[in-house]
Amino acid sequence: MSQTVANTEASPLNPHELRRMDAYWRALNYLSVGQIYLLDNPLLKETLKREHTKPRLLGHWGTSPGLNMLCVHLNRVIKRDDLNMIYVIGPGHGGPSLVAHAYLEGTYSERYPSITQDTAGMKKLFKQFSFPGGIPSHVAPETPGSIHEGGELGYALSHAYGAAFDNPDLIVACVVGDGEAETGPLATGWQGNKFLNPARDGAVLPILHLNGYKIANPCFLARIPKDELQKYFEGMGYEPFFVEGHEPASVHQQLAETLDIVTDRIRNIWSDARSNGNLTRPKWPMIVFRTPKGWTCPPEIDGKKCEDYWRSHQVPMGDLDNENHIRILETWMKSYRPEELFDETGKLLPELASLAPEGHRRMSDNPHTNGGLLMRDLHLPDFRDYEVEVSSPGATIAESARCMGGYLRDVMKLNLNSKNFRLFSPDENKSNRWQDVLDVTDRCYMAEIYPEDDHLSPDGRVMEVLSEHQCQGWLEGYLLTGRHGFFSCYEAFIHIIDSMFNQHAKWLKTCNNIPWRTPIASLNYFLSSHVWRQDHNGLSHQDPGFIDHVVNKKAEVIRVYLPPDANCLLSVTEHCLRSRNYVNVVIAGKQPAPQWLTMDQAIKHCTAGLGIWEWASNDMGSEPDVVMACCGDVPTLETLAAVDLLRKHLPELKVRVINVVNLMRLQPHSEHPHGLSDHDFDALFTKDKPVIFAFHGYPWLIHRLTYRRTNHKNLHVRGYKEEGTTTTPFDMVVMNDLDRFHLCEDVIDRLPQLGARAAYFKQKLHEKLIDHKEYIAKHGDDMPEVSGWGWGRNHVPVEGATSTEGDNV
Amino acid sequence: MSQTVANTEASPLNPHELRRMDAYWRALNYLSVGQIYLLDNPLLKETLKREHTKPRLLGHWGTSPGLNMLCVHLNRVIKRDDLNMIYVIGPGHGGPSLVAHAYLEGTYSERYPSITQDTAGMKKLFKQFSFPGGIPSHVAPETPGSIHEGGELGYALSHAYGAAFDNPDLIVACVVGDGEAETGPLATGWQGNKFLNPARDGAVLPILHLNGYKIANPCFLARIPKDELQKYFEGMGYEPFFVEGHEPASVHQQLAETLDIVTDRIRNIWSDARSNGNLTRPKWPMIVFRTPKGWTCPPEIDGKKCEDYWRSHQVPMGDLDNENHIRILETWMKSYRPEELFDETGKLLPELASLAPEGHRRMSDNPHTNGGLLMRDLHLPDFRDYEVEVSSPGATIAESARCMGGYLRDVMKLNLNSKNFRLFSPDENKSNRWQDVLDVTDRCYMAEIYPEDDHLSPDGRVMEVLSEHQCQGWLEGYLLTGRHGFFSCYEAFIHIIDSMFNQHAKWLKTCNNIPWRTPIASLNYFLSSHVWRQDHNGLSHQDPGFIDHVVNKKAEVIRVYLPPDANCLLSVTEHCLRSRNYVNVVIAGKQPAPQWLTMDQAIKHCTAGLGIWEWASNDMGSEPDVVMACCGDVPTLETLAAVDLLRKHLPELKVRVINVVNLMRLQPHSEHPHGLSDHDFDALFTKDKPVIFAFHGYPWLIHRLTYRRTNHKNLHVRGYKEEGTTTTPFDMVVMNDLDRFHLCEDVIDRLPQLGARAAYFKQKLHEKLIDHKEYIAKHGDDMPEVSGWGWGRNHVPVEGATSTEGDNV
Repeated sequence: MSQTVANTEASPLNPHELRRMDAYWRALNYLSVGQIYLLDNPLLKETLKREHTKPRLLGHWGTSPGLNMLCVHLNRVIKRDDLNMIYVIGPGHGGPSLVAHAYLEGTYSERYPSITQDTAGMKKLFKQFSFPGGIPSHVAPETPGSIHEGGELGYALSHAYGAAFDNPDLIVACVVGDGEAETGPLATGWQGNKFLNPARDGAVLPILHLNGYKIANPCFLARIPKDELQKYFEGMGYEPFFVEGHEPASVHQQLAETLDIVTDRIRNIWSDARSNGNLTRPKWPMIVFRTPKGWTCPPEIDGKKCEDYWRSHQVPMGDLDNENHIRILETWMKSYRPEELFDETGKLLPELASLAPEGHRRMSDNPHTNGGLLMRDLHLPDFRDYEVEVSSPGATIAESARCMGGYLRDVMKLNLNSKNFRLFSPDENKSNRWQDVLDVTDRCYMAEIYPEDDHLSPDGRVMEVLSEHQCQGWLEGYLLTGRHGFFSCYEAFIHIIDSMFNQHAKWLKTCNNIPWRTPIASLNYFLSSHVWRQDHNGLSHQDPGFIDHVVNKKAEVIRVYLPPDANCLLSVTEHCLRSRNYVNVVIAGKQPAPQWLTMDQAIKHCTAGLGIWEWASNDMGSEPDVVMACCGDVPTLETLAAVDLLRKHLPELKVRVINVVNLMRLQPHSEHPHGLSDHDFDALFTKDKPVIFAFHGYPWLIHRLTYRRTNHKNLHVRGYKEEGTTTTPFDMVVMNDLDRFHLCEDVIDRLPQLGARAAYFKQKLHEKLIDHKEYIAKHGDDMPEVSGWGWGRNHVPVEGATSTEGDNV
Repeated sequence: MSQTVANTEASPLNPHELRRMDAYWRALNYLSVGQIYLLDNPLLKETLKREHTKPRLLGHWGTSPGLNMLCVHLNRVIKRDDLNMIYVIGPGHGGPSLVAHAYLEGTYSERYPSITQDTAGMKKLFKQFSFPGGIPSHVAPETPGSIHEGGELGYALSHAYGAAFDNPDLIVACVVGDGEAETGPLATGWQGNKFLNPARDGAVLPILHLNGYKIANPCFLARIPKDELQKYFEGMGYEPFFVEGHEPASVHQQLAETLDIVTDRIRNIWSDARSNGNLTRPKWPMIVFRTPKGWTCPPEIDGKKCEDYWRSHQVPMGDLDNENHIRILETWMKSYRPEELFDETGKLLPELASLAPEGHRRMSDNPHTNGGLLMRDLHLPDFRDYEVEVSSPGATIAESARCMGGYLRDVMKLNLNSKNFRLFSPDENKSNRWQDVLDVTDRCYMAEIYPEDDHLSPDGRVMEVLSEHQCQGWLEGYLLTGRHGFFSCYEAFIHIIDSMFNQHAKWLKTCNNIPWRTPIASLNYFLSSHVWRQDHNGLSHQDPGFIDHVVNKKAEVIRVYLPPDANCLLSVTEHCLRSRNYVNVVIAGKQPAPQWLTMDQAIKHCTAGLGIWEWASNDMGSEPDVVMACCGDVPTLETLAAVDLLRKHLPELKVRVINVVNLMRLQPHSEHPHGLSDHDFDALFTKDKPVIFAFHGYPWLIHRLTYRRTNHKNLHVRGYKEEGTTTTPFDMVVMNDLDRFHLCEDVIDRLPQLGARAAYFKQKLHEKLIDHKEYIAKHGDDMPEVSGWGWGRNHVPVEGATSTEGDNV
């Protein structure tokens, strides 16, 4: 039960302050319990009855009282020192707490005018919580002041550091649940301090909420000796402060004193860096906040321990048809003494309300938590200026990713003063060919730097750490607070953050239905070192399935692009940087490869999203015999090489070549806003001709996107079928039947009318495949003639092979 | 360049020992370089020429010399003390090192007889590495002695702990790369020591290989002060030992001395626990091994720093068309003095060969690394004894997951003595209703235990930690060393380990083609708290996409089951525990739900994998008007309720009900070994009648699996379309059009011949949906009549609702 605060020593809170702060805390606790249990009778003016309570009790009490106390105390220092502070609440189950906080600060009523600060509003506040048509039980996009969904655990610190980057006066108070602290992403999240520059960035104040229990088990950080816990945080470069207890008055005093110290520390670190130029990595403060789980709820219910135990994790009393439980609930809620907190109308007493900061200093109303309010558009150079000259299709060899890197270098340069653009990569920035960006900025590093180090500095804007979780979490935090970025990753390993992508996509989908949430920059992925060119790393590095994963999410927030060459990639890149509230997935290679389109052609092609490549086709003015479709750079190369073979050896065959940049164009318009109409689809892919589709990813994805199309029965897709090892680039496509020879065979197999000459040609193709196998077994490398696209006739040698420095993991 | 070892102080290695061990190290280094560069001239008997080298240079030198030194020294203590030791090599890029190690120990020639221990064999060894038709460049299933693929980083320690569980005399030396140490999973992997019982389990000896650089960047653990590093490991409960240097002789002595100490420590910890019964968590030793990246390669190449720098990460000289590079390579390789290592025939000198352990004590031949050799079948109780009585379909209410838990309790009990079965869960064992297993064992815990704790003990066999990565990694390590397990997880959050699943599935696929790799127990997932019953946690907890992810992998290793009730779940569970070399995904609910089949029916149904439920159908002896198919427990309930409605209100309609347990049956037989033939598929699903398919997951997956089937054009699938929030169970299905009312409407929409009465009925259904919305908005709970399956007529009240203790996160 809630304990009365005795007058204690004056320092640092005097009795008056202490009493008021404890009252505010009780108000938050009261509102938290009310949301979980009550439908009516919000201020308990009547004797509590079953019908005043909810039929289904959903919510999490356990973490709420601790979060509530932290809110009260953070408000104290914000108000006193006019701090710019936001919170990231890892224990996001504590939805009731954050909602109560926003309600008492007035923000909730500003966002949702029907939830007024009076008895009627409080009743609605209680009812809507975890109620059909109401709000989720967790901290969510609907919660003012949140940039962090309280569902999947692990990302609180990564989000917090992302928010703090380039916000030099911002303190991000990040509450880490001790359950969450067991996850991998959180365990490395602490190390964000190796990348936080105290001169240019804000501060993260981690608060480990050590209340001891998860759903059904103790947390191990609560069960190791204090000296181990202390060393753990010191070992990660923090100065830990411990606030521990179960007696509210004592904890209030300790917490107030500790927050006085840590905010001082942060100001000193900032000023040392900014006034004295001290850029050695500081020992940032952090707090271990050890208080009971479910603090102030009944110590026992039905003879079973509840407070300070895992039973208080969720809803302490699930069965309110038990009259005794109704009485326990009433006594519990009344222990907060609501009559001392709210006036007759149900409004918080003014002497308590005045404890909260005002306007945008309220954490629930800080504009950093509604990033679109602060977001400024990037200054973008004209991507046309980065055109790769293509005198004729295939005549130029270039590394698409490197061309993109050149453009991003200048995006970086143009926005250096705005300090709102960063690149993120798990040690793959250079391997994925974005190294040119290092001409204008460095890699960010706050650990020790040696003289021989290559472009490392505290001021760098390229964020490299060998953790896809950190890259994703930092970028999300950066975007959600109104900035811009791009994440470069090996295609196979982006699966490491599948679940983080899920949560971000769900967040965006939900925000689209919340009027006060302003649009933010899209989350942009560049996936290179892709499945077809991981021949040197082998099967473990070969996986194109992220596309399949992404397209399960709501069409309104998902975009997938597979530019076939550098000019298309440039066009797509610029488009992604301008877009808002999407997840853009861009997949393209980094190896020297033939270039197909001029910039004008590329812009037209990317705007259409897909189209006939007339220069490669010979069906002009008539129906083709076969459609050769391709999506992805390597499939495009193999398709064009196949078409070259077919047109040379079977010149009577009318071939139409279609390239797809924007994968979502394949879906019906009813399924995705970018989807082609059936009429347009039929015009391109015909109603009845064979379509040989060479796809970058798993072939069945194309079927999934097109199964409702008229000509689907004639669609034959080649793609990655999970065959690979350490081998040559061409052998990779052969292993998966995606190579030019197989594609030709696929055409011939579907057009028996081609007759004997085609059969003979097919036999020759088959022999060519055997030759190739023999050649590579002997030479360990591909036949030179399969490196280009024009077999025999138009062979283009691959030039400009690059050094292996930083090439590949 | 390799440095000559001077005679140093005697302790602990005498000059003779030191000289021999250094020679063994040089031999490993020589073979590592040879594999990366050479095609021919393996012992450099001729002047090295371009044609002796590979056309494509693929591999990773950087980590290899460090791994090589560790191998030499681990062998010393293994041999001297007859230790049972295996290694887990986190820096799996170092494939050349482990292959060299197995080759010198003789294991390689035993597994691959053509790779003989002579010049001809060495030539083949060199050529096959990263060569088409040869072996991968990383540590891989092909590498004798490995249970850990060296591709995706982060899981070394989790695998190592998994291997050490229940292997009381096994020491798992786990090398952690300092790049890998930045990942989240590895960062929490260290905490495995909170779950390792020194009386019953073996030991993990973590060795942090601190060589400073990743692909292009320094690692931060190499750039923090030593006292921070020390505290970091002490804070995680280890006793760290530092071995540091670049002078081989000094490092040899330090490493030997350190290994003497740490193996002593491990033996003392074991004996203290086993003889003295001391089960307090010990401070396990670990080693920080700080040596130069690319150690012993040329310090500079072309004027650029190479050794001890990121440039030595992969292939120090990429361009061997440069004659100067050929000379550098030759000098480098000769610096190892091969003439002092190998005899005239190319065989390692006997005085060196004798340094290695023999037989199964060789780490490359330890049977724990080929787990099938040691695996014993589980003793399985007869699952029929756990039958849920079903007097008529729907008459019984039961929690399927809890029934499974009862069976697993007895599996656990029967195998307690065998010590080869564990359950793994991220704090969700009880929430997912497996709590009965705690009747026969506890949750494993080596952190502090309080008197009030619930079933926690060092001897527990239920592994609960709030990290899906740890659960997955531990289980993989446990299975790969020949044991059995089951992983229980919330369906949405299993995506956290998408990428780990990928790597395990790839491992299994590859092992199927390696004759000496013996079958291991399948990796079994039980996904409960699934998308349809996360109504209380909301959108962040709703995601059925793991199925989509899984079916992208090779059909030969993938199985997906969605049992509709408890008896089916029992049958499937037993099947999974008997199966080998698969990944089995089992999805079923934990909430009280109607039961449909008796055990005999369930066995028949699960054996078929799918089938007509005749008792629910009324098309006997004729073609149906419509097929109502369902897969998953909630879709089955809604389908049967819809059929009940249809048969009551449109009795002339002939309905066939098909339930699918084994999802892979839907695929063509050509795509999956479980796939139905087209003939059988047509017989079930008809060739031309409408099929309304209610599916547990994303609806397009069913289309993807069936697009080649005759009747695909008439297939209409309902499933999860990413709509959800905190609401009621029935509202969840309504939001996604999967509810009984929508399913009836779907039927009516496809059968216009049903006429006016059907249209009227449809109007009534529509009104019912509006009633429902109004009801839940008012009452916050579902109408009682939608909790059962027989609307009106057969309403079955849901009894046995359980307490909320440990119910849900």
